[in-house]
Amino acid sequence: MQIYKAPIREYEFLLDVFGYDEVMALEPYEAYDREVVSDMLEQGANFFTNEFLPLNKVGDQEGVTYDPKTYEVKTPTGFKELYQKCLEQQMFGLVQNPEYGGGGAPEMLGVIFSEMGTSTNKSFSMCPGLTRGLIESLEAHGTQELKDAYLPKLVTGEWTGTMCLTEPQCGTDLGLIKTKAVPEGDHYLLTGTKIWITFGEHDMAENIVHLVLARLPDAPEGIKGISLFIVPKFTLDGERNPVNCGGLEHKMGIHASPTCVINMENAKGWLVGTPHKGMRAMFTMMNNERLGVGLEGVSLGEISYQTALSYAKDRRQMRSLDPAKQDPNAKADCILVHPDIRRQLLNIKSTNEPMRAFAYWVAQMIDISRHHPDESKREGCDKLVQLLTPIVKSYLTERGCQNTDSAMQILGGSGYTQDWCIEQYFRDLRIAMIYEGTNHIQALDLVGRKLPRNGGELYMAFNEHLSQFIRENKEDEAMKEFLEPLKATSKKLMNATMNLGAKAMEDREEAGAVASNYLNLFAFTIMSYMWCRMVKHSLGQEGKYFKTKIKTARYFFNNVLPEVETLVARIDIGKKYMMDLEDDEF
Amino acid sequence: MQIYKAPIREYEFLLDVFGYDEVMALEPYEAYDREVVSDMLEQGANFFTNEFLPLNKVGDQEGVTYDPKTYEVKTPTGFKELYQKCLEQQMFGLVQNPEYGGGGAPEMLGVIFSEMGTSTNKSFSMCPGLTRGLIESLEAHGTQELKDAYLPKLVTGEWTGTMCLTEPQCGTDLGLIKTKAVPEGDHYLLTGTKIWITFGEHDMAENIVHLVLARLPDAPEGIKGISLFIVPKFTLDGERNPVNCGGLEHKMGIHASPTCVINMENAKGWLVGTPHKGMRAMFTMMNNERLGVGLEGVSLGEISYQTALSYAKDRRQMRSLDPAKQDPNAKADCILVHPDIRRQLLNIKSTNEPMRAFAYWVAQMIDISRHHPDESKREGCDKLVQLLTPIVKSYLTERGCQNTDSAMQILGGSGYTQDWCIEQYFRDLRIAMIYEGTNHIQALDLVGRKLPRNGGELYMAFNEHLSQFIRENKEDEAMKEFLEPLKATSKKLMNATMNLGAKAMEDREEAGAVASNYLNLFAFTIMSYMWCRMVKHSLGQEGKYFKTKIKTARYFFNNVLPEVETLVARIDIGKKYMMDLEDDEF
Repeated sequence: MQIYKAPIREYEFLLDVFGYDEVMALEPYEAYDREVVSDMLEQGANFFTNEFLPLNKVGDQEGVTYDPKTYEVKTPTGFKELYQKCLEQQMFGLVQNPEYGGGGAPEMLGVIFSEMGTSTNKSFSMCPGLTRGLIESLEAHGTQELKDAYLPKLVTGEWTGTMCLTEPQCGTDLGLIKTKAVPEGDHYLLTGTKIWITFGEHDMAENIVHLVLARLPDAPEGIKGISLFIVPKFTLDGERNPVNCGGLEHKMGIHASPTCVINMENAKGWLVGTPHKGMRAMFTMMNNERLGVGLEGVSLGEISYQTALSYAKDRRQMRSLDPAKQDPNAKADCILVHPDIRRQLLNIKSTNEPMRAFAYWVAQMIDISRHHPDESKREGCDKLVQLLTPIVKSYLTERGCQNTDSAMQILGGSGYTQDWCIEQYFRDLRIAMIYEGTNHIQALDLVGRKLPRNGGELYMAFNEHLSQFIRENKEDEAMKEFLEPLKATSKKLMNATMNLGAKAMEDREEAGAVASNYLNLFAFTIMSYMWCRMVKHSLGQEGKYFKTKIKTARYFFNNVLPEVETLVARIDIGKKYMMDLEDDEF
Repeated sequence: MQIYKAPIREYEFLLDVFGYDEVMALEPYEAYDREVVSDMLEQGANFFTNEFLPLNKVGDQEGVTYDPKTYEVKTPTGFKELYQKCLEQQMFGLVQNPEYGGGGAPEMLGVIFSEMGTSTNKSFSMCPGLTRGLIESLEAHGTQELKDAYLPKLVTGEWTGTMCLTEPQCGTDLGLIKTKAVPEGDHYLLTGTKIWITFGEHDMAENIVHLVLARLPDAPEGIKGISLFIVPKFTLDGERNPVNCGGLEHKMGIHASPTCVINMENAKGWLVGTPHKGMRAMFTMMNNERLGVGLEGVSLGEISYQTALSYAKDRRQMRSLDPAKQDPNAKADCILVHPDIRRQLLNIKSTNEPMRAFAYWVAQMIDISRHHPDESKREGCDKLVQLLTPIVKSYLTERGCQNTDSAMQILGGSGYTQDWCIEQYFRDLRIAMIYEGTNHIQALDLVGRKLPRNGGELYMAFNEHLSQFIRENKEDEAMKEFLEPLKATSKKLMNATMNLGAKAMEDREEAGAVASNYLNLFAFTIMSYMWCRMVKHSLGQEGKYFKTKIKTARYFFNNVLPEVETLVARIDIGKKYMMDLEDDEF
């Protein structure tokens, strides 16, 4: 049994909270007014619920299959047909460039559609997600010729894309890449093996275009000698390129998403961007990809919460501890009456809502950073996006896994069986803490790259943004109970940031040792800020919906936020006791 | 690839720390001297590593199969043969009564064998685990005739046993049981459906004996009208009893352990114990079962840790942040050099070791409570066992799941694939937070039954035990850095216990709301105490092993223990914000 109803009320609420009007006012987005958006959301919700969701469980159970004779990969029953339906309904390319057939919609809408797609079928949704990364790299760094040849088919989804980074000897450490690219005429011949290639081979589209990191013959060693190429399964003149699937990984989850070994033997490839500058070109599309992965935590947290809530309202076990709440017409009460069930539900609800807000806020800033007429506004938003991206990716996936796990616990034994699919949601989500840069790599990106940049200008921009909000609201008595803990948390973050900066200058291991906990402290500051934004919008409004928001915020500030005490203590301790053991003492 | 080496050095260490000599001195255990024990551990370790471990992954991948025509269940390749080998080697019944063919060994040895069995093959090990529950119930409450007829074959393992409690409408709330038992001659005819019956049907043994909760015709309503029966698959005269498997659950993990629907239609059963007093009889074997389930967290935490450590010593990615630690002969360093990898490993190591100590300490107290010549000593230990059992079950499974999850994260993408089996360990372990009473039910048992008993005598016994240890060691300067945080934590526990007692008298929902966090605070007190016991034993001893123990303890007290700050804050808040939402606000 799968339970899902698209949380459109939440989406509309967040468009209000963050001021979608500001996005709509940007020149390229004018067509997407609120009425258009409402229609789109409703239609999208219907499509995802009716078409994506029914294939979710079958995808998990059948999985993908590989034929070693033909190197072909077969997707589960119905996936090919669903992909065709998506093409017909123009479900892909919503946020892409209209020049190449995209919808030109703001990211702020894109994330909503991503969320619904991932909630209802994560494995399937990964395919267009990856294609998007290719599109953005190509658009930013490809020649006009390559763009004209590939983008129209990629944007509509007729062709799909992959990201070929990892090799057996290197995942996190891409400096160790060995795949070679040798020039031949206007193109290159690529030879090497790539692993973990999502949708590296499948039967849903007529062509697959791989974005490949490789080394030119004269490349310097390490990370500064990597170039970027596209390697299509079929070249533009229809020739089958020797880029083949060599096998599939067998994984904990996302069974319907093929994770391929990709072998290239003198496969034709075309250079994207400048020789040896491939890593930089890759990073241009990382922000969106990482936002997308963070959003997976919200998506599966959402459907898991809905499932657990539905179960809790239906399942009757034990009596309420408060005699007044006991149902006289039954022998037991619905488990929603029990404090611990409510505690677990509220742990999910009170974190998933600000996590969604966080993702949407970042999406809004991406829109502004791209299209605002005022350059300083564009730059200001871009700084925040740079700073916050590793936090979105890491925190939302980590908490999302916890939330999905809590939802499973609410169902007891039923959560552990395949009947309610919660165990699948957990298995499908668990990879999000690992791929697209493990969560600790995100933490190192935050403390090692983002914080020190230009003397800390990114953090200062964040702090100024936050201080401004606090100043603007400090006279509001009703905001006080929420603003105070936000101020206290941001002060803890400020102290930790200063100490970290001082320590890390002397000893980089200190930064590495506390990075993960520091990232989470930062995330709690943002979660508190998100709640304040949502509360601010809800205060004084009529209707239960807004009152619930305020109650949920109170739960967050009183019951969830105390986690920062532990984080602060751990950051204070630093590396001392973890570096104390010799290798053979572990 | 499966990595496992039985941690025999740890077992020997704990036998020293807790004073196995005291157990060995108890009359029935005299044969199990240290030399005998060392031989047994070595032989056991070989058997588990060579026979259990190779079938672990195949069990997960093949799973069990059900034939709806014959109602038969087939276990995975090799399981039947392994079971025969265990019978031949007399692997079952180690701690059982020698009168019925058992080994008569102390629980303190039993837990070591349980740990090794579960580490190497959890699914398989569940079968003898369940049989043991049946044996204990029968031994405590059965007539001599039933005991003589069933126990010899159950103790040796020729026959296996089940526990038939749950029905579709009731898991946690057994008062709702509907299965009927109607008297007929010297026996009863049972009719009803049971679910979640572990090894309810299989092909490894020639007979299966079900322990069934059911209602007599004149039974009072609810929990006080439940009686206990045994219902064998084949009766003693060889007749096939109509107790059949109606299907299998499809689960997240433990795929090689059949979870059966069991249908009885006038199946012959024999009463165990007094009519309507079945629940009380069930509880007599709950302590051991719950200790066994808690131990599952240690077992899979252990094998996951070993796997992650082995990977971390082999896998090379990135450079050490400390130039002095960079390996000049390679392009990248082993990931064990990175602070965050050490942090994650130490989070596991510094909790799994005191968790194991906790389980072994409880096992020792079970031995003493049964066989010590001094009645007050027996009673004192029994009180502690009663109090600590829900904590062992809940905390060890919760932390064990976290630890297994952390180990998976250390392996990155490799942890998510089936190659290293860590994802299987997580899936296999996850049920332990749910079965044998969900973890929150354990917390309610602690705050609702154990704490209030006889004016708090169980908690007072614990507190006196702890205070005595603190008094005895307060002059020891080297112990100070460990004893101080133990004292501070136990004081927080004392405050929380007093406040809880006061609040819960007025409002039982307050107790329900904080029970889970309170249980964890209690657990941290015990973990701190376990570390102090281990440190006390290690101080002043020669050898790296003991120095490592002290370093690991320091990590625990400084980096893990700060979690109590969060728990205390949550306990202080109480039910307020979680009961504030109306049902339709979730």
